[in-house]
Amino acid sequence: MASRPVGKPAAENFRVEEVALPAISAGTVLIRNRYLSIDPYMLGRMYDTRSYAACQPLDEVMIGETAGYIVASSHPDFKIGDAVVGQTGWQEYALFNPKSLRKVDNDGTALSAYLGALGMTGATAWFGLTQICRPSAGETVVVSAAAGAVGSVAVQIAKAQGCRVIGIAVGAEKANYVTHQLGADDCIDYRTVDSSTDLSTLLSRRAPNGVDAFFDNVNGWILEGVLPTMNLHGRIALCGMISRFGDKPMSLSTHEFLLLSRLKAQGFIVWDHLDQWDQAVATLKNMLKGETLRISETTSKGIESAADACLGLLNGHNIGKQIVQFY
Amino acid sequence: MASRPVGKPAAENFRVEEVALPAISAGTVLIRNRYLSIDPYMLGRMYDTRSYAACQPLDEVMIGETAGYIVASSHPDFKIGDAVVGQTGWQEYALFNPKSLRKVDNDGTALSAYLGALGMTGATAWFGLTQICRPSAGETVVVSAAAGAVGSVAVQIAKAQGCRVIGIAVGAEKANYVTHQLGADDCIDYRTVDSSTDLSTLLSRRAPNGVDAFFDNVNGWILEGVLPTMNLHGRIALCGMISRFGDKPMSLSTHEFLLLSRLKAQGFIVWDHLDQWDQAVATLKNMLKGETLRISETTSKGIESAADACLGLLNGHNIGKQIVQFY
Repeated sequence: MASRPVGKPAAENFRVEEVALPAISAGTVLIRNRYLSIDPYMLGRMYDTRSYAACQPLDEVMIGETAGYIVASSHPDFKIGDAVVGQTGWQEYALFNPKSLRKVDNDGTALSAYLGALGMTGATAWFGLTQICRPSAGETVVVSAAAGAVGSVAVQIAKAQGCRVIGIAVGAEKANYVTHQLGADDCIDYRTVDSSTDLSTLLSRRAPNGVDAFFDNVNGWILEGVLPTMNLHGRIALCGMISRFGDKPMSLSTHEFLLLSRLKAQGFIVWDHLDQWDQAVATLKNMLKGETLRISETTSKGIESAADACLGLLNGHNIGKQIVQFY
Repeated sequence: MASRPVGKPAAENFRVEEVALPAISAGTVLIRNRYLSIDPYMLGRMYDTRSYAACQPLDEVMIGETAGYIVASSHPDFKIGDAVVGQTGWQEYALFNPKSLRKVDNDGTALSAYLGALGMTGATAWFGLTQICRPSAGETVVVSAAAGAVGSVAVQIAKAQGCRVIGIAVGAEKANYVTHQLGADDCIDYRTVDSSTDLSTLLSRRAPNGVDAFFDNVNGWILEGVLPTMNLHGRIALCGMISRFGDKPMSLSTHEFLLLSRLKAQGFIVWDHLDQWDQAVATLKNMLKGETLRISETTSKGIESAADACLGLLNGHNIGKQIVQFY
């Protein structure tokens, strides 16, 4: 990362550097990364303000999760060819301490899935949906950014639990994807909606029994519009606020429904709940095997494409998980 | 109730009527009410808009909880002299179906306590504090409207649990009451605070380790100001919004802290949790016996004073529970 963004981040905030491969030191491994995960949290790290965590230092490798193969090892538990996932950053090769690596199966599942539906993204969707939204079969669940990485998994988990699922997504292509490919019962294209009041009205028609649970990846006026449609004792998982990055936060005028409708709202990040990671991934692997989970990815090629892929999240360019493939 | 308020409610929205005592019918009891409970929820019922529940019909006895004694009975379980609490409304006598009455002890505890700290008010404070705020000993708890009926009990439960308690109350008299009589460690007089930003700054100084739990009776700019001071994984019990009645709702610009600080916020009313009523009241009775609970009441005399007592809630005239004493 070369500089801090002013307003929205731009490709100019990054540069690609070529350096000599480091020599392997005792106890470490050398990984050749094949895939880089691109995630909304990266946008927050670019700024020098309060976010989930410390901000990304300048002139250092940008933070990011990668999946690749061991190409040299001086650690007894890792051998050449092992598939591993770790926070090695935006780089093609990484010399790494294996303590912070996760070995993953080399069983025919595409390696990139461990960055998405079988990794942090999937665990995030699983936690928010099953531990915060906690819908019962037959309840109505709304998922915003439903065609996105987390949203696409949340939609499918909710469907697998027998819920009526209404997605919210930008544009007809994504709305179609959410209903036809992910199996949602309905999807609102929010290009066709002018305001949060319109969204409330539309949602009340599309969810005549009200909304029991809301998995929110957007915040801002989407949250504003969904709150009045929530049923008594509804649950809201506050997972992301992609609407927020680079813009001023929007005030919420419908927050009183939290009290009027006796709702529960909970912000979360999956890193707070690592004790439930294995359960989440096991559930998602079973869904994949049973074909109730479809993995959706948008892939760009080469490390030079990483910055644009990341900024594309802001403009909603991706369907499903955004991945950069190095080779 | 004679008419709907336009803007803030006024005494003119009510009238006092004198009618003949009804003859007792089979299976009912006649109660002479001694105390009437005055509560913020009544304000919401006066309007013809969405609130916790159906609005108060015009030209009928205003809803309200009363405590009194049986003066005539044709029901085998109730005898003359029994002390009972029920939703009999703003009236000196009530002919009532005993199914919806609660017999209370006639053991020397002031009867009015069963409308407050040993009744709905106390159970509300107990539920919000112990089931939503869930503070551990040593944590910092903020209670808004801390000198009010619910707030004054919440402060004392939090102190009994070993927390550091900071109240927020209007005016020096109430702030002193909260620290000197209720035992809070500190209390902010919000007459001395100009804005929610000021409140955040002040609270950050008075709670240098941050705020772990917030019991909110006010909403509006108090909630706005407390949110940024909350620690990671903080809990917020949304119990009331006395700031709201008769005014337009205030937008919340700090709602993003729900996500940034991974907070839980839950709106509730005690009627949703009646299964925990007995546990709540037993705990509060023990606190009363052990002198860790002080009952605080403001009492006005005569049914003619009921409307003004109710409107006084809006102006914060009461310290502790507002009671109307009929005789």
